[in-house]
Amino acid sequence: MEKLIDCLVDDPEISKLFSIDAELQSMIDVEAALAFAQKETGFIPEAHGTYLEKLYAGFKPDVAAIKQAMQRDGVPVPELVKQLRKKAEAPFDTSIHKGSTSQDIVDTALMLRLKRVFKRLEQSLSIILELIGDLLNRYGTQTYIAHTRMQIARPMTVSDKLSSWKNALLADQSRLSHAQSTFFTVQTGGAIGNNSDFGVKNRDIVRLMAEKLDLNYGNSWQTDRSRIIDIAETFCLIAGTLGKIGQDIVLMAQNEVHAIALAKSGTSSAMPHKNNPVKAEILVSIARLQAGLLGTIAQSLIHENERSGAAWSLEWLVLPQMAVTSGGALLEMRQLMETVSFQEVRT
Amino acid sequence: MEKLIDCLVDDPEISKLFSIDAELQSMIDVEAALAFAQKETGFIPEAHGTYLEKLYAGFKPDVAAIKQAMQRDGVPVPELVKQLRKKAEAPFDTSIHKGSTSQDIVDTALMLRLKRVFKRLEQSLSIILELIGDLLNRYGTQTYIAHTRMQIARPMTVSDKLSSWKNALLADQSRLSHAQSTFFTVQTGGAIGNNSDFGVKNRDIVRLMAEKLDLNYGNSWQTDRSRIIDIAETFCLIAGTLGKIGQDIVLMAQNEVHAIALAKSGTSSAMPHKNNPVKAEILVSIARLQAGLLGTIAQSLIHENERSGAAWSLEWLVLPQMAVTSGGALLEMRQLMETVSFQEVRT
Amino acid sequence: MEKLIDCLVDDPEISKLFSIDAELQSMIDVEAALAFAQKETGFIPEAHGTYLEKLYAGFKPDVAAIKQAMQRDGVPVPELVKQLRKKAEAPFDTSIHKGSTSQDIVDTALMLRLKRVFKRLEQSLSIILELIGDLLNRYGTQTYIAHTRMQIARPMTVSDKLSSWKNALLADQSRLSHAQSTFFTVQTGGAIGNNSDFGVKNRDIVRLMAEKLDLNYGNSWQTDRSRIIDIAETFCLIAGTLGKIGQDIVLMAQNEVHAIALAKSGTSSAMPHKNNPVKAEILVSIARLQAGLLGTIAQSLIHENERSGAAWSLEWLVLPQMAVTSGGALLEMRQLMETVSFQEVRT
Amino acid sequence: MEKLIDCLVDDPEISKLFSIDAELQSMIDVEAALAFAQKETGFIPEAHGTYLEKLYAGFKPDVAAIKQAMQRDGVPVPELVKQLRKKAEAPFDTSIHKGSTSQDIVDTALMLRLKRVFKRLEQSLSIILELIGDLLNRYGTQTYIAHTRMQIARPMTVSDKLSSWKNALLADQSRLSHAQSTFFTVQTGGAIGNNSDFGVKNRDIVRLMAEKLDLNYGNSWQTDRSRIIDIAETFCLIAGTLGKIGQDIVLMAQNEVHAIALAKSGTSSAMPHKNNPVKAEILVSIARLQAGLLGTIAQSLIHENERSGAAWSLEWLVLPQMAVTSGGALLEMRQLMETVSFQEVRT
Repeated sequence: MEKLIDCLVDDPEISKLFSIDAELQSMIDVEAALAFAQKETGFIPEAHGTYLEKLYAGFKPDVAAIKQAMQRDGVPVPELVKQLRKKAEAPFDTSIHKGSTSQDIVDTALMLRLKRVFKRLEQSLSIILELIGDLLNRYGTQTYIAHTRMQIARPMTVSDKLSSWKNALLADQSRLSHAQSTFFTVQTGGAIGNNSDFGVKNRDIVRLMAEKLDLNYGNSWQTDRSRIIDIAETFCLIAGTLGKIGQDIVLMAQNEVHAIALAKSGTSSAMPHKNNPVKAEILVSIARLQAGLLGTIAQSLIHENERSGAAWSLEWLVLPQMAVTSGGALLEMRQLMETVSFQEVRT
Repeated sequence: MEKLIDCLVDDPEISKLFSIDAELQSMIDVEAALAFAQKETGFIPEAHGTYLEKLYAGFKPDVAAIKQAMQRDGVPVPELVKQLRKKAEAPFDTSIHKGSTSQDIVDTALMLRLKRVFKRLEQSLSIILELIGDLLNRYGTQTYIAHTRMQIARPMTVSDKLSSWKNALLADQSRLSHAQSTFFTVQTGGAIGNNSDFGVKNRDIVRLMAEKLDLNYGNSWQTDRSRIIDIAETFCLIAGTLGKIGQDIVLMAQNEVHAIALAKSGTSSAMPHKNNPVKAEILVSIARLQAGLLGTIAQSLIHENERSGAAWSLEWLVLPQMAVTSGGALLEMRQLMETVSFQEVRT
Repeated sequence: MEKLIDCLVDDPEISKLFSIDAELQSMIDVEAALAFAQKETGFIPEAHGTYLEKLYAGFKPDVAAIKQAMQRDGVPVPELVKQLRKKAEAPFDTSIHKGSTSQDIVDTALMLRLKRVFKRLEQSLSIILELIGDLLNRYGTQTYIAHTRMQIARPMTVSDKLSSWKNALLADQSRLSHAQSTFFTVQTGGAIGNNSDFGVKNRDIVRLMAEKLDLNYGNSWQTDRSRIIDIAETFCLIAGTLGKIGQDIVLMAQNEVHAIALAKSGTSSAMPHKNNPVKAEILVSIARLQAGLLGTIAQSLIHENERSGAAWSLEWLVLPQMAVTSGGALLEMRQLMETVSFQEVRT
Repeated sequence: MEKLIDCLVDDPEISKLFSIDAELQSMIDVEAALAFAQKETGFIPEAHGTYLEKLYAGFKPDVAAIKQAMQRDGVPVPELVKQLRKKAEAPFDTSIHKGSTSQDIVDTALMLRLKRVFKRLEQSLSIILELIGDLLNRYGTQTYIAHTRMQIARPMTVSDKLSSWKNALLADQSRLSHAQSTFFTVQTGGAIGNNSDFGVKNRDIVRLMAEKLDLNYGNSWQTDRSRIIDIAETFCLIAGTLGKIGQDIVLMAQNEVHAIALAKSGTSSAMPHKNNPVKAEILVSIARLQAGLLGTIAQSLIHENERSGAAWSLEWLVLPQMAVTSGGALLEMRQLMETVSFQEVRT
């Protein structure tokens, strides 16, 4: 359900990646990569693989039936697979989802979309870094009064100030870039996590799936969810960097301080003279939200036995909003950077 | 953006109360109550009040423009008021939103909807209590093996077991009922929280607004957000009670324990013999989510100065999902209770 | 292990209530009340009860042995009871801890100490309210510039400002006072929570225990931990009120704003001219800590089966620091209030 | 203040690193490294540096005075530096703490101790990995019944099961090892974070300090606290791995499941037949605590301006308990692993 506040905190491009359609499509993509890899390794007949890849390419799931089935199964895969099998002709249907399990599909499909989320965040971040570069050029040599513990400390340059923001953003950028090569790993374990149903070529199947999907290849992470927390931490750190900058701008834009001016932004229904630093404030809100969500999703590390319904579902309730609001924070920051002008120090 | 997991955790009736339409309508209702109260107290001319009440009754806001304005203002009220003023004929437009401010409208409109949320939770809870009553009748005298610290303790009756659930649910029910008379208080403070713009009759205006909206009358709580945390705690405690019961059922439904049987529920894409306790698990997930969210929204107690954009927005990011998933948990619990049968102790 | 930061955030009076000695003593007090109640109801022979009450009154536990046993048992009661039984002569030893269980003793002993914590908080709060009364007298009529969304709003009086703080503190005071009659309830359930081992007079035994200990009488709350969350919320709300005031003071004491002056407080190792608002800042830190801890302890609502070792222990890891830092925040606030002077508005 | 529960959750070796003595000693070590680096670069006269290094080597601070000063300053450094200056003869005192600031000393001293914490965790983890190796040898070929979503799934080997634990622990080990070369970076920024008071050789001074202290050299991270969150996440992930294993063991040790037996551990005051899985439960408690604390400390990312008293203090309230209980969890796990025996599957 769309809410008014979403306008301020969402990145619609990222929201779309968590829509039902995108979620199901990414699962179909994983099934297709599975068929491909199983065909290539001879785990399923070549004709089956070829047939299935074609079938999947044009497949449109019955979304209403899947939503219905979610109530019963807690995951969309059993119904999705049922629909795929129904659509396929014999004997090709017997090779669908072979040796796989819901979690393989759901987790790998999530990785596919998270990888796109990170790409999007990188793009948004680059633009902000450019804008900060512009500000450095325009205002870098001006004097800025540093404040520590909320008291006037000593003068430094606007360049010193902007560099502290820039360095933190560059660290986030490098974190996002590093993540591409480490976080997004195909997940396959089969029914109980030991890949036993993929036969002797199970490592090859998984490796080929990874290649096809442009994901990393590695150990099954079915019950070791530290990867999810690393991803969540990345969202939180980006939001945190932006929240810190947002808080700085809120403080610098105080009428009494006036280290920064903002182009006319937030209007008030009661006090027309005001210029509320709405975008800077929302960055603080998002950072505080994300910190809390990081602590919440970290509860899902306690993933009992070979698969935990409770801990796994908790991830789905938390991670999408972290992804979406990280992106949203970057969009807000971009707009904010475009309205900022550093002021000459009043003497 | 609707996500697949929403099917399992949302109460659509409550979701609707946080939709953009419902949010704006409740704000218009508050403006109408304001006009009524200001007319009755003579703060605005009677003709103005009458005109405005009629205007508001049929008013449909330009939602797209309000969403646009949210980006600038951080709140919908300035644009909403602008639209109302534009629609009104002179001189009536001068009495619109008089002496009020965005926060008065937003907070009071939230109370209106939260009150309905609590009503809905009460209804869902009643049904569950009835279902537990049925289970008590059917299974109460059977033996149940109590477990402490995850080890077999001693036998007790199913009635003892169900009573422990029932007592916790009754406590939640009484909490919800108590809340009706304490939590939902009209909020008016005006631009800076001291109601100074409502003139000498400011207490009467607020009292009449409260009556009209069927809310409580009390001090302005513009910067004291403990009320919001009390409401959030109520959501969390309900989710916690259900999470505890859900966890119990997950444990009781283990194949090796078999203290409870569930009608065929969660199917697996890899293991057809399984009967996953999906609804019980999701209750645990929701309880853990809500606990984390309670800790997150409590950060907004640090509401700086006479109005905090950052802390206030944080409330909006957290409270709706607590409301919606409390309701969703009750719906899941209801369905779960309908599928439960206590088993005779195996000897 | 004492840390440097403890100097700033602890109330030593409350710390003492969570020391090993205080914890064990309160458990002995509960055992004594149990013996008394069981004697009065004839559940144990009068001579036994009289003997035990005397024994307990002078008993000093072997703390080292109890710490050792904690490693094995996860609770101190089995070893404590063993020590008591060893000390008692036959046949009186047979009436020790009769029909009771570790949780009855631990939970009730916690209530005893929490009740004292609340009394202490009430005292500290009263002093702060007096200090605010003094400030109202001294500065109430001065002008204060209200700020909303971190921008200058409009003038109001210092009295308006102080009243907003005072009202929030009065609400906390009333919450603390209300808590005395609702939160602190004796907990007895026996081994599996149904009080079955106290015989037919089990209600009388519990009622007499409650009277003796000056606690409330009510249902067993062995697995319904909402009471603990209510208590934690109270700590958090008090810390939140103080954190809000602390944040206000930090903002008002900014050199550029100078709405408030603080007597010389925090010195800097590098910048001797500075006067850091240390006590106001620490109030913000404590409020943020407590918000997070509230969300953490709320995870323990999912208290599985008839007793959860994991959820129960989590309470012990979180609640004491909430108690201690609430008290500490009040002490800091008291000192802060003594150093505050409102400044004339500069024109 | 020591509490009973500490016996179960603390690593005393790590506790000691956060004691007042250890904290102050590490600060003196940083001052000594500063003097060394400033001497080597000619920023202070060689004779001064030599004098100071000797002075610091034997210096014992007046702890009571520092605790007193904490109340005023919020940090121990101003008083510590005052004591050092008082102890030094003229003119050497003029070179003490030159161009430095409290935060440089406090943050770098924290890094020194955290590095030792990580070493300690690595040692504890190695022992656990050895114990798991033993279990693999002893039980690896036995059958283990996998469970997914709390229902019986299918058989696998104990080796499969232990490998899933081992892989997660190896990932933590590699994380700890990687951290040595990335996390522990000397922090120097001087009064306002731009190192301007160290003169033209400021990079050399910092580099030499890093070498002397065996820390990394890098940018000032005065206001970018992502490093602290990375460290906190590491604690949380270790606790999470152990919590997951603990939860598994609790479930496997259920009487009805009996996949694992534990040597006699937790005794009950009411039910002598029980063998409570105390150490496994406490691992779950610690994991849930740490998740919540991670979400709490992440709030301190919003580190306003050039130094935030509030956000900085929040780190000190949270990080030590994360360090100490990570270590404690490892100690408990070690003892737990020594008591575990896998059971033959009952047929």
